[in-house]
Parts: sequence; structure tokens; C-alpha cells
Amino acid sequence: MNRVLLAAAITCSMGVCASVSAQPPADCVPSVLNIPGAPYPCIFPDHRVMFRVAAPDATKVRIRVGPGFDMSKEPDGLWYVTTTPQVVGFHYYTVSIDGAVVADPATQTFFGSGWYNSAIEVPDPEGDYYRMKDVPRGSINQRWYYSKVTQQWRRAYIYTPPDYDTNTKAKYPVLYLMHGWGENEQGWHVQGHVDVIMDNLIAEQKAKPMIIVMENLNAVKPGESAALYHARNVTTQAVPAPPTPPGQRPAGPRPLGSGVFTDMMLTDLMPMVERSYRVAADRDHRAMAGLSMGGMQTFTTTLAHLDKFAYIGGFSGSTGGRGGFDPKTAHDGVMADAAAFNKKVKVLFLGIGSEEGPGTKAFSEQLTQAGITNVFFLSPGTAHEWLTWRRCFKEFAPRLFR
Amino acid sequence: MNRVLLAAAITCSMGVCASVSAQPPADCVPSVLNIPGAPYPCIFPDHRVMFRVAAPDATKVRIRVGPGFDMSKEPDGLWYVTTTPQVVGFHYYTVSIDGAVVADPATQTFFGSGWYNSAIEVPDPEGDYYRMKDVPRGSINQRWYYSKVTQQWRRAYIYTPPDYDTNTKAKYPVLYLMHGWGENEQGWHVQGHVDVIMDNLIAEQKAKPMIIVMENLNAVKPGESAALYHARNVTTQAVPAPPTPPGQRPAGPRPLGSGVFTDMMLTDLMPMVERSYRVAADRDHRAMAGLSMGGMQTFTTTLAHLDKFAYIGGFSGSTGGRGGFDPKTAHDGVMADAAAFNKKVKVLFLGIGSEEGPGTKAFSEQLTQAGITNVFFLSPGTAHEWLTWRRCFKEFAPRLFR
Repeated sequence: MNRVLLAAAITCSMGVCASVSAQPPADCVPSVLNIPGAPYPCIFPDHRVMFRVAAPDATKVRIRVGPGFDMSKEPDGLWYVTTTPQVVGFHYYTVSIDGAVVADPATQTFFGSGWYNSAIEVPDPEGDYYRMKDVPRGSINQRWYYSKVTQQWRRAYIYTPPDYDTNTKAKYPVLYLMHGWGENEQGWHVQGHVDVIMDNLIAEQKAKPMIIVMENLNAVKPGESAALYHARNVTTQAVPAPPTPPGQRPAGPRPLGSGVFTDMMLTDLMPMVERSYRVAADRDHRAMAGLSMGGMQTFTTTLAHLDKFAYIGGFSGSTGGRGGFDPKTAHDGVMADAAAFNKKVKVLFLGIGSEEGPGTKAFSEQLTQAGITNVFFLSPGTAHEWLTWRRCFKEFAPRLFR
Repeated sequence: MNRVLLAAAITCSMGVCASVSAQPPADCVPSVLNIPGAPYPCIFPDHRVMFRVAAPDATKVRIRVGPGFDMSKEPDGLWYVTTTPQVVGFHYYTVSIDGAVVADPATQTFFGSGWYNSAIEVPDPEGDYYRMKDVPRGSINQRWYYSKVTQQWRRAYIYTPPDYDTNTKAKYPVLYLMHGWGENEQGWHVQGHVDVIMDNLIAEQKAKPMIIVMENLNAVKPGESAALYHARNVTTQAVPAPPTPPGQRPAGPRPLGSGVFTDMMLTDLMPMVERSYRVAADRDHRAMAGLSMGGMQTFTTTLAHLDKFAYIGGFSGSTGGRGGFDPKTAHDGVMADAAAFNKKVKVLFLGIGSEEGPGTKAFSEQLTQAGITNVFFLSPGTAHEWLTWRRCFKEFAPRLFR
């Protein structure tokens, strides 16, 4: 263990240990996701990650990333562990303290698996495209709006490109971009850096300026209850159902990624966006994509409404690739006439990490065999994680609205 | 204890307990700040709060809100406690699990005391002004920009009023609104609901549409290190100093709330805002206010630059009220000529909670005695907390730009 102990600088009082000067090893660089001033977790040049947790009276502390790593209590009274080398990119993690699964207070928190986890970011030498550079910047707008379908206030995050406020006559194409299971409408800009990637692509003239709309996959109608994330450590329950309209029976829990989202999107979200922003509101200027469960939702929504969408993207999530999928009959036969489908859908993009299952690749091959034009992208060395999806987005966005 | 145990529905595996159906007592309503589906913490009509934590192998679990409350392990293997009645409004809290101080995974997390804490919201019967209603909505823009003074990318959140995108000829006045110690640029819209309060005030024609800029008080120049929050449970350290310019010696840690923030604000932030938004860029249309440390910063900045600001607000934070403050000499004598000062400063607003110290009230009296016109607002029954500052904002905003 390469750690330098500066035990004299560490103080414990009322059962809580603190140190304002204990430094990690000189070659262990604090993760960019840490709260300001937190030296741990830090990352060695070989991508081992060193964690530190203050848990003075605990008997077992464990970092839950990858296979998991037991921490050990050092003479300074704090718990430490250095992991094996980690894959580059963004990884959620949690800490188990005597069986309680919690976030590490040393990092920012990120909504994943249905609650606010910790995360580390292992720097990617090829990650320049998601780092902030001296280029014109767009902004992310948080906008609350009322949904008639779900009868609730909903929150959308909307990226507007750098020239949106100055190029005041322009109308912009729109990409609807969905998160995955257990995440929410914050995922793409907080974990995914979608705004930074777009700003960089636009500055290099690799992608057209566009508006990107990010909302939440969870949508239920009054009278239904949602099958929610069930984060096991927080003992969630199904969300209480909104009041059942008179004369109707309460429905059972509705699976996520259902038609209600499509209904909400077409009835409430799209009109709000097209009312509030300068939008080119036709199918040739409208795209939808998503990751994992959001990819499945994308196919559910777009294939049922090809009159409204000309660009489709699925990142580690699609609609086929498993037994039983037949391009001739699936989705009401929308792909049965491949030539007609290819004419309508200007880009059908599929991407996945090389360390994930074969699903999306198999789906791409099924489509190709059936004559459906599609783009397949394999992210080398990455799993079902955000680096895969940042890379997918970087490959997908330049193909839009050409 | 009013709790209904549904032990049969609770499962524990690999040391983690979970329940998807255990319900809190019928009159205990989940806090609005919980993650989706989390039934605890919940709030009784008399404002007692019931907490539940899964910590299967812990020996001591404690909720740290107010004086703190020890939890007890119930037959279902989960830890519970019901507190005494809590004051209305937003309260940070944490959980101590065998001495480890962490956020409760059942709630959203909020940046306070330098890290992401949990929080509960005890409903205020008079809190209608910060609840979403069927009125036109503004938006919160997240915007990254580069600061020449601090040589770093910085994040601002900028509220634009509901008519900003449609009333395209209008130029808007601007309020710069600061957070307090241990919080950040997210505080006012996440904890404070400033956008909802403004939307409601504008809809009732009680406040003029304005742009509100929220940034981070922490600002250091290259070669200096920041005296940061030092959240005790995460063993923070002083932030590593940016590189020292050639020929200069590294400076010591710089206290927060210093002149560097003013320099950064005037050199980088204000020009970015006035370049990016349709702003009426003169002193009569520029205000600054802040809470606690942000109130102190407001007086430091505005009293040194009265050519740039006509409206000043301090919520639970000001510049005097203690021994040694003399309105005749303080801040380079800017208040020495009371009549001239009153002519320049169109509103000087001071607010504080009735359960806080006497500082701000004493300051208001000092000013009044010295002939300085000021508005004083006392928030009944609240302490150094967000409900005080939401109320202060609601009183302050209608007085601006009249």
C-alpha cells in the first residue's frame, strides 16, 4: 500500500474522525467527481483506485465497485482500500458500513439504481471529446411543465446550442434523449456530459446545432401505480397511485417503458418544447434515442410513430436481438417493407460496449439480414456504463439532420 | 410507536434488508424530498418525523437532526425512530451508522456543510408561495463559463422569467443571488425553490420579471489555495493551489467571502451574463443579495461598487450588528453621508429568522440610528435555515426595480 500516513494531523471527536491535511500518495489524483477538497477517492496512473472512509466504530466496511473490496482500518482510525485497476470512465459505487449500503460522503451523488449513489471517474486518455474546452458553450435549461396525461408536474432538461440566443431567426432540429433504468432526467447532462460533447462537436463542425430534450421514462396515468426502481437498501415501495377517476378500477403496477410515456411525450412534452423553443417541428427535424431501457422506449415510441421521427438511436438497448424477434412482423410490421422503411428512417443507429452481452449486435445483424439499413458501433473495452453511452452519443450526433 | 409492521414482506439477503410493501402509519406522509417510492422519512400531522434505515449489522444508528435521535432495531431487522415535532420547512440531516456520518439513501441529496446531505421538508401551511401552481413558468439555465480571474471553468445557474423567450424585445433587470457557507450555486433553486417563488410572484403581479444569477462564493486566484468547507466526516483538505505564476510566491489559504469573488464577479460573471442574456445593464437595474455568508459577500461587493448596484439584500447575513461596526467609517465611509447613501441605494433589505441571533436586527437598528433607510423583516419561528431565506426572498423580490 503506497499510502503516506500523516496520523498526527487526524482528529477524532464525538466518534467522527477528520483530517484536513492527510494527503494521498503523490501519484494518486483525486477523482474529478469528489466534493471540493476531498482527496479520496484518488486514482493511480495504472487506474487502481484508493478509497478512504471514516467509520470509527464499524466492524466491517466495504467498497462496492466491481467485485467489491473490503477496507481495512489503519492506525489513524480511518478505513482504506486500494482496488485492482479499473476500466476507464464513470463508475457508480457505494459503501457498505456494517451492512448499511450508503453513498460515500466524499463524492458528488448521482441518481442511479433509483437513488443517489457515489461515483468515480477514471480518466480516459481518449476522453478529450467530453472535456470542457475554450469553445462557445450552450446551456442546459431546467423546465417544469404540467402533464395532462400523468396529471403531475414534470421536469425536463433541455440543451440549447451556443448560437441559440444570438441566431434568433433560426429554427432548430430536436433530439429526444432518454436515460436508462434506475436513472432519471439528470443522467445525460450530469453523468453523460452531453452538453460538453455537443459544444465540442459543434465547435469542430462535426454536428449540426440542435436542441436536446431529456425527460424521465417513468410515466403513469391517474389510477395506476408505477413499478418503481426498488432500490433494495432504501426499502422503497410502489408509488402511491394517483386517485382513480370515477367509474374506473385501479390498475395494477405498470411496467416501466410503457405506452404511457409515448402518450405523455406526444401529448405534453413535445408541444411544450415546440411552444417554448424555436423548433423545426417536423419529422425530418426530429430524432429520438436512448440508452438501455431508454433505447427500448425509443423503439417503442418511434416505430409506432414514424410519421413523427426520422432518426432513431439505441445505445445498449433496442427492441430485438433475442429469440422471437421477427423484423417482418415486429412492431405491427413497420419494417416488413424494408425499402419503404429505409426511405423513412434516415438513420437507425445501434451501439453497445464490447463487454456487454451480444443483444444489440445480434439485433443489428437481424436488421441487416432483413434489408434494414443500420449503423452499428461497438465501444471497445467498456461495459453497460456511461463511457459506452458518451461514445455512442459522439458517434450518433454527427449523423443527425444531414 | 404508531408503526404498522408488515414483517412478512421484508427480505434480507447478503446483509441488506429490503421491503417493497412495508407501509408507514397511514397518517405519516412521505417527505416530498424522498427518492421516488421511498415511504420513509415520513411526517405526522403534528410534525413528528419517522425515519427508517437498513443497517443490518450495525450496533448504533442515530438520526442527526436537531439534538439527534437514537434509532432502535425492530423485529424486522430495520432501524426506526420517531422524532419530537420539528419546525416547518427544510432541514438537512444525516445518519450516523456506527460512527460513520452519511446521507440517508432514502432522500435526494443536497449540498450543505460542504457535501451532499439528506433533507426533510416539513410542510408549511403558509408555504403556498413556494409550491408549483398553474402559472406560466420560467426556467433555470445551467451555464459553464471560463473565469480569467480564477482561471477555471465555473458554473452559473440563471433564472429567466416566463416571458423571456416570447417578449423578445424586452431587456430585464438582474439580481445576483448568493448561497451561504457550505452550500453552492445549486442552493437557491434546489433548496430554495427560487424559480417557483418568482413564477408565483410574477403571476400575481407582485414582482417584476427579472433575471436571477446564482453562482458560487468560492473564488481563488492562481497561486492561492482556498480555505474550504472541511466537512468533518469526509476528511477534506485544502484544495490544491493552482500553479503559482512565475515570480510570485504561493499565498496562504484565502478566507471565503473575500475580494476575489468580487473581482471574478465584475470581470467574468457580469460580462458573461450581459453578453448572453437581454439585460438592462446599469446600476438602476442591478441588485445583489445573499444569505448568511452570501449576505456578507453582498455587502462587501456592493458597498465597494455602489456605481454598479442600486438594490442590496442580506438574509441572515450582513456586515454589522457586532461591536466595532461604525456606519460612519465602515466600508471606507460609504454610509457617512446618509442622505447621499439613501439616494443611491433604492432598497437596503435585511431579514433574519426569529430563532437566530440578534445580529441582523442589531445591524438594522444601527443603520436606522445613523439615518440609513432600510427594511427589516423577521421570519417568525424559523432559525438559520432555508425557510427563513425563502420567506426573506418573497419579501425582498417585490421591492426590486420599482
